[in-house]
Amino acid sequence: MPNPTAAILIIGDEILSGRTRDANMYLLAGELTRIGIDLKEVRVISDDRNAIVTTVRALSDAYDHVFTSGGIGPTHDDITADCVAEAFGRSIGVRDDARALLGAHYEARGVEFNEARMRMARIPEGATLIENPVSIAPGFSLENTHVMAGVPNVFAAMVASILPTLTGGKPLLSQTYRINRPESTVAEPLGILAQKYPALSMGSYPFANNGAFGTNIVIRGQDGAKVDAAILELAALFPAHENG
Amino acid sequence: MPNPTAAILIIGDEILSGRTRDANMYLLAGELTRIGIDLKEVRVISDDRNAIVTTVRALSDAYDHVFTSGGIGPTHDDITADCVAEAFGRSIGVRDDARALLGAHYEARGVEFNEARMRMARIPEGATLIENPVSIAPGFSLENTHVMAGVPNVFAAMVASILPTLTGGKPLLSQTYRINRPESTVAEPLGILAQKYPALSMGSYPFANNGAFGTNIVIRGQDGAKVDAAILELAALFPAHENG
Repeated sequence: MPNPTAAILIIGDEILSGRTRDANMYLLAGELTRIGIDLKEVRVISDDRNAIVTTVRALSDAYDHVFTSGGIGPTHDDITADCVAEAFGRSIGVRDDARALLGAHYEARGVEFNEARMRMARIPEGATLIENPVSIAPGFSLENTHVMAGVPNVFAAMVASILPTLTGGKPLLSQTYRINRPESTVAEPLGILAQKYPALSMGSYPFANNGAFGTNIVIRGQDGAKVDAAILELAALFPAHENG
Repeated sequence: MPNPTAAILIIGDEILSGRTRDANMYLLAGELTRIGIDLKEVRVISDDRNAIVTTVRALSDAYDHVFTSGGIGPTHDDITADCVAEAFGRSIGVRDDARALLGAHYEARGVEFNEARMRMARIPEGATLIENPVSIAPGFSLENTHVMAGVPNVFAAMVASILPTLTGGKPLLSQTYRINRPESTVAEPLGILAQKYPALSMGSYPFANNGAFGTNIVIRGQDGAKVDAAILELAALFPAHENG
């Protein structure tokens, strides 16, 4: 059975303007690989209602899971929850369990539970909450779409809450072999090896180190024995003792 | 006249698997903002022929410029140039000027100009070369799509080559005001201010510093006088002397 597929949707003008460097894609990409969910696509879009609704629909139709990041805070430009509700044709309103979580949190800290804070208890009809141990305001899953905060430590905490509830597939195994030759020397033998192992993916990543060029070859696949065999063939082509 | 629009397309399994953290989106996003080209969308997709062709077509139809990163090296999985040619219905082959650039480079270094290296001289019919002062193998522009390398220092050098040739718009101006209050306290007054200045975008970015919560408000727009006026109103609502 093939692995489940996924997309990540990052929502935020601050990423597109270059003000903020996104950290969430890299974190979640690694976690998904680890549990055997194949990340197929990432999109970054602005805090625009039409863009969010259209993109949530497109990605949730195309992939088994969609993970969103950003736009669920208390301010006027936090419109992700409303847009996800609209994408799935659901109503949205303040939900009792989310309000209770936030109310207890603010009461314990002696902070007023004002209208802006109440926005964070707005949850689409039929959604399941995603726990937020960092700042309490929850994310939610609606159908196959998991809606999480953009602030990196909150996003990471929500990812840790949601991933154990998902069914992964066979994790992608990978091995890296370092060759102290330029990529353009390695390319031809690597191409022949790749044709011999169609079930594996072979990537080459050039590097420069004190003016000398080298290439890391990463061989990935679900069948560990095949990955081992391909790495051994590669090592025979470029023996380590000729390899600096 | 509205600013030109753009999308970035990052091509590479190594980003989607979480092996490599992308650096190119952040770099180019900041440069585009600086010259007044509005980045509307970023996509990350795998080294898959159908995905590349389809996405190049969709983005080049939707935006004034498309910038791609990755997949133009010498190896078997470097298929971006062929896919961009296919997306625009052009032929592709080794081009004399690109071959001459690479040939001179390898001859000077006493390196064989083999078949894999020759792949990097394959350029679609009708494209314009993008100079690569780092490792010589050129990128290219075809119609509104600018095809560049994925290796970050090569990508940065190609961005520096291509951007001065593009016509920008009015740069987006921005000012930041720091408030030592949590985002959920700032949210309501900020929402009212945002309604008063519909031509400006106001983003709020919460932070935590030694356990105290604060919020940076970023106000952006093309009209510097309006940005100034909005920042002054915000500062009157949250005076600096009450502010830490």
